[in-house]
Amino acid sequence: MMKNSTPAALVRGPADHEVRNQIVLAATEHFSRYGYEKTTVSDLAKAIGFSKAYIYKFFESKQAIGEMICANCLGKIETDVKAAIDQADRPPEKLRRMFKAVLELSLQLFSQDRKLYEIATSAATERWQSTLAYEERIRVMLRSILEEGRQSGDFERKTPLDETVMAIYLVLRPFLHPLILQHSLDYTEDAPAQLSSLVLRSLSP
Amino acid sequence: MMKNSTPAALVRGPADHEVRNQIVLAATEHFSRYGYEKTTVSDLAKAIGFSKAYIYKFFESKQAIGEMICANCLGKIETDVKAAIDQADRPPEKLRRMFKAVLELSLQLFSQDRKLYEIATSAATERWQSTLAYEERIRVMLRSILEEGRQSGDFERKTPLDETVMAIYLVLRPFLHPLILQHSLDYTEDAPAQLSSLVLRSLSP
Repeated sequence: MMKNSTPAALVRGPADHEVRNQIVLAATEHFSRYGYEKTTVSDLAKAIGFSKAYIYKFFESKQAIGEMICANCLGKIETDVKAAIDQADRPPEKLRRMFKAVLELSLQLFSQDRKLYEIATSAATERWQSTLAYEERIRVMLRSILEEGRQSGDFERKTPLDETVMAIYLVLRPFLHPLILQHSLDYTEDAPAQLSSLVLRSLSP
Repeated sequence: MMKNSTPAALVRGPADHEVRNQIVLAATEHFSRYGYEKTTVSDLAKAIGFSKAYIYKFFESKQAIGEMICANCLGKIETDVKAAIDQADRPPEKLRRMFKAVLELSLQLFSQDRKLYEIATSAATERWQSTLAYEERIRVMLRSILEEGRQSGDFERKTPLDETVMAIYLVLRPFLHPLILQHSLDYTEDAPAQLSSLVLRSLSP
């Protein structure tokens, strides 16, 4: 299917994009009703009213569609986490908001859309590209807060920055990873405040 | 079966204990070969050469046997964690050893005895009594190191002790919980050192 794709792509460029979006939208709707694991590409084709072959023109597998849905979901969480961080002025408060927002937004997805949450769980467990990229962008956000706090004098500068980023990321990880979060529900009420306080104490100059 | 159990128990007291041990030993052997989830009490009875009814005299369910196996397993890890802590003189080093030992011993169980690890996973996921008690004893160990470090002047005393115990417990938890550990294998090499360093920075007076 990838043979001679360049000329074809040039001709049908924008339309491709639209059809892909249309498939992803319909698949999101379908998965969120019937679940990701149980649905086959045939089910999906039938539900959308496309042929299976037509869907395969745009996505090489069910997982490729799942990847797009997952990337959209995580992209939304990421935007909201960024917005929460931007509401704060000082780096320490930014870090607190980041912990709080990550947990709240992940829990929201879990409680509001259990079936889409399943996709995120598969993605995290099987280490799909969309999850790896999301985790990396979370680390980038974290690093940027830490750099700002080191410059402002709010945070200590002795520990290598890479180590600080990684250690704090590990503290945050149970609330980022959908499967781990499901096994941490007993702790979600106090965890963000307690953990961000611990992290801030560890950062004091 | 529990009716009039007191006189019977008085008569066969020590023997009861021995039979229970015998069943637990045989079950450990059997589960570690064939897995916990797949084995029924009937399978177990056949393998040990007891009647199913006889086993039910001593354990009310398969889970009750699993609880004993799990408690033995976790008890062993706990003893080894304590020994690792006791090898260190000062509270900061005790904390480092605790992080290292918890991870190493959990990983050991995971890599050496995958089938018994399954029992620990069920226990943690379904919150069996043996796991809850183990988690509580880990928090008690942690508290004792923190108290010692507060007295020696190694650790800060401003944060309420309960909060410090809980926050550090949450940092350690992904490496205590068998299911979460399985989804954290990418991080096990550096995590104990990085996390215990972060925690020690947070404790500096």
